[in-house]
Amino acid sequence: MKEIAVLGAGSWGTALSLVLADNGHKVRLWSHRKEQADEINQTHQNLKYLDVTLPSNIVAYSDVESCISGVKAIVIVVPTKAIREMCKQLNKSIEPSIPIIHASKGIEPVSLKRVSQMISEELDDYKYEDIVVLSGPSHAEEVALRHPTTVTVASLNSEHAKLAQDLFINESFRVYTSSDVLGIELGGALKNIIALGAGISDGLGYGDNAKAALMTRGLAEIARLGTKLGANPLSFLGLSGVGDLIVTCTSVHSRNWRAGNLLGKGHKLEDVLKEMGMVVEGVRTVKAAYQYAKEENVEMPITEGIYQVLFEGKKPNEVVEQLMNRSKREEMNDIAHLLYERYAR
Amino acid sequence: MKEIAVLGAGSWGTALSLVLADNGHKVRLWSHRKEQADEINQTHQNLKYLDVTLPSNIVAYSDVESCISGVKAIVIVVPTKAIREMCKQLNKSIEPSIPIIHASKGIEPVSLKRVSQMISEELDDYKYEDIVVLSGPSHAEEVALRHPTTVTVASLNSEHAKLAQDLFINESFRVYTSSDVLGIELGGALKNIIALGAGISDGLGYGDNAKAALMTRGLAEIARLGTKLGANPLSFLGLSGVGDLIVTCTSVHSRNWRAGNLLGKGHKLEDVLKEMGMVVEGVRTVKAAYQYAKEENVEMPITEGIYQVLFEGKKPNEVVEQLMNRSKREEMNDIAHLLYERYAR
Repeated sequence: MKEIAVLGAGSWGTALSLVLADNGHKVRLWSHRKEQADEINQTHQNLKYLDVTLPSNIVAYSDVESCISGVKAIVIVVPTKAIREMCKQLNKSIEPSIPIIHASKGIEPVSLKRVSQMISEELDDYKYEDIVVLSGPSHAEEVALRHPTTVTVASLNSEHAKLAQDLFINESFRVYTSSDVLGIELGGALKNIIALGAGISDGLGYGDNAKAALMTRGLAEIARLGTKLGANPLSFLGLSGVGDLIVTCTSVHSRNWRAGNLLGKGHKLEDVLKEMGMVVEGVRTVKAAYQYAKEENVEMPITEGIYQVLFEGKKPNEVVEQLMNRSKREEMNDIAHLLYERYAR
Repeated sequence: MKEIAVLGAGSWGTALSLVLADNGHKVRLWSHRKEQADEINQTHQNLKYLDVTLPSNIVAYSDVESCISGVKAIVIVVPTKAIREMCKQLNKSIEPSIPIIHASKGIEPVSLKRVSQMISEELDDYKYEDIVVLSGPSHAEEVALRHPTTVTVASLNSEHAKLAQDLFINESFRVYTSSDVLGIELGGALKNIIALGAGISDGLGYGDNAKAALMTRGLAEIARLGTKLGANPLSFLGLSGVGDLIVTCTSVHSRNWRAGNLLGKGHKLEDVLKEMGMVVEGVRTVKAAYQYAKEENVEMPITEGIYQVLFEGKKPNEVVEQLMNRSKREEMNDIAHLLYERYAR
């Protein structure tokens, strides 16, 4: 039994707290809103985010300092845009030997930094090498039902990765380790682009062939970018790649898919965003990936096409036409070539 | 314009004939039943297999010799179990310089031979190196509607692969080339096992997380077997791997998924097969892959679990339990290790 702090009491933070509690740990669940923390402690529920009764070994906090005092590990599950502010608060009281695991997905606009990079930049005494990322195909609601779920934890520090595996693994939550932080984070973040694209394809009225093509070739271009940046292309064949992609693109609950679906049906981006009434992460991610592709000189025709639909007023069917009429290619040859370049240096 | 023979007038053979006809080629479509060939020529329809009107540049034959006489390429699309018999007929009159492209999926029971191996064994003057395989996520009905579709053609003979690409590629049918015949054939054949597994998971009442886990880790074990046999693991990230897997596992029309679904709900294999009233390819494939895994000493726990459900009376939920409680693993490490062994030799 260990005391663990989980920072972020949304649906995923709450579900991960349940897994830790199932494994006998004492969980301190932090919310940035005192009323939410009070509600959790008084009712043992967090109904706005997850319809489940929380066991007594999950206790909520709204003060960061007391939440993390004396814990053996910290799990960060706040939205990507709140990561830097969260870390600034942690800096005041964190002991630098405490392992940090994050389960947030996204890429920072303009800087193109991944979450583990942001965390290590903001925390004075932490190195990038020590951060752990947890990612994989996981609806929080199904984790709460103890339905079988698998995720990957990755860190350059293999001891930290194994510690994270030991904390979370149980008979309904299987955890694999990896050292490819870059590949695991990119897979989790960039899959939202493809979910938008899958929605567009469905919105245009195309079938399974087109959607599978878009998902597969979309994953191939993410793997291409990742390989160019130094990731292991096989990571994209794994749970944070293929796995997360499947869950995101085939669930009609996915916000990104729904936004894409409306775009495919001819709605304009501003109307779609108004109708959705909430953040569509994929829209931000497309911008970041488009910039990434230009900077790294990597071909990402699907990302580019979706960018044109979102920000340049191009019609979705024109983008499909442009994708289908590209010059003839060899499959996976570009990734093999990038690997060859890497190892021939 | 070229004259091309397409051998096999099922739904996939008919759809591929349409693609070739769209590209201006004259297609000779062979059926083993004279009545079917007559019907196609008289009505320009092949309604039992595909609801579409065939253009006049598709002409049906029921005699192999006259069908292939003088053609510039032969496309074989008969069921896997009819491949050897088809080739025996071809042997009598085929000119050995004619490129052969096959679009059949499966592995021969007991011998564990792939389709390209069977073809080159049966045809006197053909080498394995010259055969082309065409595979990818492609419902025939959607190809007939000219919805965007992508496939891969693979051959060790790159000229033959490019010829196949040139024959089929158009604005609604995009064709990639590859040299990894082994990886492309294994992906197309073994994905049926995972479709059975995905059906079992859904039949047990599990959600998206479990299905994505099963598909991803199922693909990982197929990639592991493939890599052990000499395939490029990246091929499983491609259209004949991830792509075909997505189409097969997420379509409720898939026979394999439906059979698995019934098994997951507690029905017995013999009752399921009786209820389906037709061949469930995945059931045969599980046997072949199970044998493959033993012979090659490759861990395939999902295949093994499904084998136990099918042939040893094990309960599906017991198999899930056994899969979730395996010892701790590193993700993709085994494939990286196999690659290292291959290149360190």
